[in-house]
Amino acid sequence: MIYEITDLKLDNASLILNETLFHNANGYIGVRSNFEEGYPGGIPSIQGAYINGFYDFVEMKQAEKLYGLVEEKQTMPNVADTQGIRVFLGDEEFSMFTGTVLESKRTLNMEEGYTLRRVLWRSPNGKEAEIIIKRLTSFTRLSLFLIEYAVTPLNFDGSILFISTHQGEVTNHSNPDDPRVAAETVKHIIPFRVELRDGRSFVVSRTARSGLTVCTAVENRFASGTEGTVTTETLETGTVTRASAAAVRGRTVKLYKYTVFSDSIRQNNCENHAGEDIEKHTRIPVEDIYREQREYLREYWDGAFLEIRGDEKLSLAVHYNLYQLIQSVTKDGYGNIAAKGLSGEGYEGHFFWDTEMYIQPFFTLTNPEISKTLIEYRFNTLEEARKNARMLGHSRGALYPWRTIMGKECSGYFPAGTAQYHINGDIAYSIVAYYISTRDISFIAEKGAEIVFETARLWMDTGNYYRGKFLINDVTGPDEYTCIVNNNYYTNVCARYNLYWARVFYEILESSGALAPLAEKIGLSAGEIKAFSHAAENMYLPYDEELGINPQDDSFLSKKVWDIPATPKDKFPLLMHYHPLYLYRFQVCKQVDTVLAHFVFEDAQSIETIRNSFLYYEKITTHDSSLSACIFSIIASKLGFRDKAYMYFGDSAKLDLFDTHRNTKDGIHIANMGGNYMAIVYGFGGLRLKEKGIHFAPTLPEQWEGYSFKVHFRGSRILVEVDRESARFTLLSGEEKSIYINSVEYDLHDQVSIKMEAAHEV
Amino acid sequence: MIYEITDLKLDNASLILNETLFHNANGYIGVRSNFEEGYPGGIPSIQGAYINGFYDFVEMKQAEKLYGLVEEKQTMPNVADTQGIRVFLGDEEFSMFTGTVLESKRTLNMEEGYTLRRVLWRSPNGKEAEIIIKRLTSFTRLSLFLIEYAVTPLNFDGSILFISTHQGEVTNHSNPDDPRVAAETVKHIIPFRVELRDGRSFVVSRTARSGLTVCTAVENRFASGTEGTVTTETLETGTVTRASAAAVRGRTVKLYKYTVFSDSIRQNNCENHAGEDIEKHTRIPVEDIYREQREYLREYWDGAFLEIRGDEKLSLAVHYNLYQLIQSVTKDGYGNIAAKGLSGEGYEGHFFWDTEMYIQPFFTLTNPEISKTLIEYRFNTLEEARKNARMLGHSRGALYPWRTIMGKECSGYFPAGTAQYHINGDIAYSIVAYYISTRDISFIAEKGAEIVFETARLWMDTGNYYRGKFLINDVTGPDEYTCIVNNNYYTNVCARYNLYWARVFYEILESSGALAPLAEKIGLSAGEIKAFSHAAENMYLPYDEELGINPQDDSFLSKKVWDIPATPKDKFPLLMHYHPLYLYRFQVCKQVDTVLAHFVFEDAQSIETIRNSFLYYEKITTHDSSLSACIFSIIASKLGFRDKAYMYFGDSAKLDLFDTHRNTKDGIHIANMGGNYMAIVYGFGGLRLKEKGIHFAPTLPEQWEGYSFKVHFRGSRILVEVDRESARFTLLSGEEKSIYINSVEYDLHDQVSIKMEAAHEV
Repeated sequence: MIYEITDLKLDNASLILNETLFHNANGYIGVRSNFEEGYPGGIPSIQGAYINGFYDFVEMKQAEKLYGLVEEKQTMPNVADTQGIRVFLGDEEFSMFTGTVLESKRTLNMEEGYTLRRVLWRSPNGKEAEIIIKRLTSFTRLSLFLIEYAVTPLNFDGSILFISTHQGEVTNHSNPDDPRVAAETVKHIIPFRVELRDGRSFVVSRTARSGLTVCTAVENRFASGTEGTVTTETLETGTVTRASAAAVRGRTVKLYKYTVFSDSIRQNNCENHAGEDIEKHTRIPVEDIYREQREYLREYWDGAFLEIRGDEKLSLAVHYNLYQLIQSVTKDGYGNIAAKGLSGEGYEGHFFWDTEMYIQPFFTLTNPEISKTLIEYRFNTLEEARKNARMLGHSRGALYPWRTIMGKECSGYFPAGTAQYHINGDIAYSIVAYYISTRDISFIAEKGAEIVFETARLWMDTGNYYRGKFLINDVTGPDEYTCIVNNNYYTNVCARYNLYWARVFYEILESSGALAPLAEKIGLSAGEIKAFSHAAENMYLPYDEELGINPQDDSFLSKKVWDIPATPKDKFPLLMHYHPLYLYRFQVCKQVDTVLAHFVFEDAQSIETIRNSFLYYEKITTHDSSLSACIFSIIASKLGFRDKAYMYFGDSAKLDLFDTHRNTKDGIHIANMGGNYMAIVYGFGGLRLKEKGIHFAPTLPEQWEGYSFKVHFRGSRILVEVDRESARFTLLSGEEKSIYINSVEYDLHDQVSIKMEAAHEV
Repeated sequence: MIYEITDLKLDNASLILNETLFHNANGYIGVRSNFEEGYPGGIPSIQGAYINGFYDFVEMKQAEKLYGLVEEKQTMPNVADTQGIRVFLGDEEFSMFTGTVLESKRTLNMEEGYTLRRVLWRSPNGKEAEIIIKRLTSFTRLSLFLIEYAVTPLNFDGSILFISTHQGEVTNHSNPDDPRVAAETVKHIIPFRVELRDGRSFVVSRTARSGLTVCTAVENRFASGTEGTVTTETLETGTVTRASAAAVRGRTVKLYKYTVFSDSIRQNNCENHAGEDIEKHTRIPVEDIYREQREYLREYWDGAFLEIRGDEKLSLAVHYNLYQLIQSVTKDGYGNIAAKGLSGEGYEGHFFWDTEMYIQPFFTLTNPEISKTLIEYRFNTLEEARKNARMLGHSRGALYPWRTIMGKECSGYFPAGTAQYHINGDIAYSIVAYYISTRDISFIAEKGAEIVFETARLWMDTGNYYRGKFLINDVTGPDEYTCIVNNNYYTNVCARYNLYWARVFYEILESSGALAPLAEKIGLSAGEIKAFSHAAENMYLPYDEELGINPQDDSFLSKKVWDIPATPKDKFPLLMHYHPLYLYRFQVCKQVDTVLAHFVFEDAQSIETIRNSFLYYEKITTHDSSLSACIFSIIASKLGFRDKAYMYFGDSAKLDLFDTHRNTKDGIHIANMGGNYMAIVYGFGGLRLKEKGIHFAPTLPEQWEGYSFKVHFRGSRILVEVDRESARFTLLSGEEKSIYINSVEYDLHDQVSIKMEAAHEV
């Protein structure tokens, strides 16, 4: 599984794009793939290294001040730059932009967990060398970023000099014209100590406003077998290391550059911690680091096993997506998954509902421990969510922020941000999914239920009864092209699920004897649970008799229909070309909304309503959001619209590798990557996690010979293999389970096989 | 008509409040009433002099950037400070805060048009003097601000020294915690030339961003009869004048300080113009200036004649309000009426719908030429309104900005700003009212109709048909506690009026032969007019059968009802204590909305609906806006709720003089002052301007003996006198008119009198 591009292009668009596509990350740190030697001036680049959950505060002035509007946001700072390595062959400096690039190639090895850049270069004066640069961020040593830099002189002798820098003075990328990127250059990181200890350099910086500290420790050393001298000098905000060795034709000179990152969110003394870690990581042979990485990934790929037969390119794209998921996801409760992972600065490193609705399903099925960690992050920020609810006027309950790093709301424009109350239901949904998939009652008792209760409370304080029905007014659904609406279908059905499961968890905890301490802690009574149930039972879900669909909200259908085919291509995404107020007056969707509800809460409606709705919304959805196509694919699969399912799946699979949204330079679209997984497993595979168990309804795209995947379910592991003839379900480990295939219950002892003629089709 | 306060308080709250209450303005310039000698440090003060329609641009960053959001606003700069006069009695400096204030009094003389401060002061060393300071801004010489400063030594001889300053280095007031005031201190005025010519000082400044120039010219001179020396020196950004005279007990020393303001919006060379004007104003005797002022006001008060018998205090308050109206209103098409007049910096000098719906009705009835000037301002900014409509996505029509000085939108928070599309209908309404009142067809042909057509067009592009009705979705009505709603009743009925009158004006112009050039200019066809009519005829007006009221918008009644009596007093105004999203979820109104529609467009509903609605909305209206109580008073009058009518009228009358909204320090509430007039003439008097003519339905508050007022109607002037016995309508001048009294038509030759038993009561 190697993603590779050869004949590297050196144009502006390709370079900055490849910085994203070949970034190294391990869920704790992420380093964009900048050339170690730099670019000539004028070439756009976003140079950065990031830490999951690390943040600075930034003032965010409101144009007009209103009570409760957010005026300070968090941002993910670029923490330090340790990528720099300039190389001199004698007196000639290596650059891709001088001399002659005879061969060049970049590789992402997803089994071994590294990226590689190989260049065959001829200098202006004719020196030829092979340069191979291997980089990794270790999954087993989360603080470690390693560069292995190898130069082999092919036709000359003399000297090779590396000038390797460690720079604390860094800034974030900004672009005043793109709402999806920070508008201004703000200094977030202020280096305040530079030290050399045992030949290692340490840069300690503090954040400008959030009072956090980050330390980077760097060691440069030659591989055994290379003889040379290494000297480092300190500068005001960093260090520079000169490593020189003799050049002998045919003999490789190899430099290792270790960087350790440590931050004060996770460590009491991050400077000491960085010192200890760099000592640990440099003491063992490099090969051990590579081996650990391989082993970690072997286990990962086993858990996340997914194979498509008959379309190798697509298969590689899917694996690329799955690799980004493990690169991006936090491994502790201090971080989460930023909208761009750790690959770039788009959306400023914020965490959204993307986590719960697009990414967590993958981990719940393949690695439930990671799901648990993600829920722990929400638990750790529950108190902030309670404060947020108070700020919004609610006397009880918690309201999770629409976008955040450390738990406080960062939405500058609340109608398309804070007003998306559905995030509360999304988080509750993810906890229920984790519970259904694991039956981990003790975690629910300890952390999960409290979130579900507190989010349920918020619905009670948000909605109200009117003529017998429970309404939820003035919220925004997933589709941001219509804001502050009444009875958004997705929100209401999501709130109903939240309220329903609050009761279920209450009863489960009650019967398991775990209820009392939690009920006391948050003052929860049986009467309150009864009110939850009553609201859930009487939840108003808009339905239009004439069209036989669920309207997106109360007034959606009374609006003008946007003519998407008649809209010039350069007017997309619409949000970049139309005033929000204008968009709000149309039936036009940035992304899946009601159709998402029909996937996630499919039992709320008949298949006819789901079909009618799909066909209705398909015509008015622009998919300007990357969270859209994958869900359309899933519902198309469910409805038997095979061509559409495959088309939407393809749109989703290629989004970043083909840069179809033209902003992958700012980072990968990690929610789409999780959604892309869902389009296979939930879409083609028809998987659903329901209260009673796990469901499948396999279909096979005509373009494929077959596909297989493994899932975890309640302690067991199941292999699903689908081809033209049959779908086979094999119990790989764990106790036997009953599973549902096309709504029929089967006992899975060893293997169940069904003929594909019987495959689900409506 | 003298408004006076004695025993001037020197506390923080009173001083800054009196700066507003005693400001001098003439519709072109306004000068706050700061003490010439200044306050000691630490006393809050807003020192300023303003020019109507003069503006600087200010960056207004949006917290989250979205297409079309306004990122630059205009603000009314403080242009220069020429108020400063320090006085030395021998070596002792006069101050209200040292020595002993034996007597003190401030007076606003509304017949003579000046303010007066009289102080009897004893210095720390026992010198006693009477100080009388008279200030005016001339209605006949708009550029002139005059201070007459008289000192009479009572028990000492020696010397008197005036140190009089002319300062170009000024800033605006700011308060980061109040959304109704600018949040930041920005330097708007940059003095670039200071000159002395013929003993007069000139300061020329440019605005920081808008490229405008302002010049102030000052002359200090002793009155004839006072001998002394006057010398002026220039400083970097201003001048200082020392005027000294001998002090002889009992003999008054009098200094005149003339200031002339000139700006580059109105003058090609404002420095020359200031020079000419100061020459003109100083050449004539001061007494002539005072006489002109008296004569101007005599005519004004005759036109705006309004008398309440039986409540002198209230009568004075009403006259105070009417005086502020003439002080605030522009006399040319470059300015308008800022929300705070020219008395302070609240709302940054912006013009709102306040003009058309609250202030212009007064001028239409008493001084139609001023109404015409106000419409001319809108005509002059029509091109900006067209651009604004394009920015909002509309391909045709014009959308007036919610708040502006020079015509560009200044709303930072569009849901409660730009989304108030009703401003288009409000402007159209004011033009119709002017037309009904004057039959000035040539002005309609020249300017008025174009506005009405262009605003009508916008409704066509905003609304859409759904199931046969014309809907207007996603706009905000007058009540800002519910934003971005569908089918706001006020907006829809207002749009209907706009569309209807577009057809009427089309037909009038067609039959008068004036249509062709305008129709050609803006590409208007008979087909388009037909579409206007069709939309007007099918305009959807929400009505609730069960309650028998017009809901404020489609979903208003489905929301929770806010419990106003249960809300602590310190939580008002609600906007300062609750997040907008929270407010939006309640039935709670900042101000009159549907009830306003029932006043302005009363024929759209039955009296039962109007009564039911009044009683319904009364319970949920906080009157957090100063635009509310006056309209409730009018409808209460209409419905015969006499106590309520009087109570709301009283609330409105006392708003500024009693500082009931606790922010009069930032400026008077000029819309309420116009509304207060309406509460008498439209409310108690039952006046309405309708297509067919002028209507009256007089009622008399129990607390009064009677009231009288004069109105202009189609070239005639009518005196209305109401007392307990009868209501008399006298034709003062002009042709005979038919008038409607309690819906009965009368021919008004000379006088019509009706018994008050017949007074309108429902």
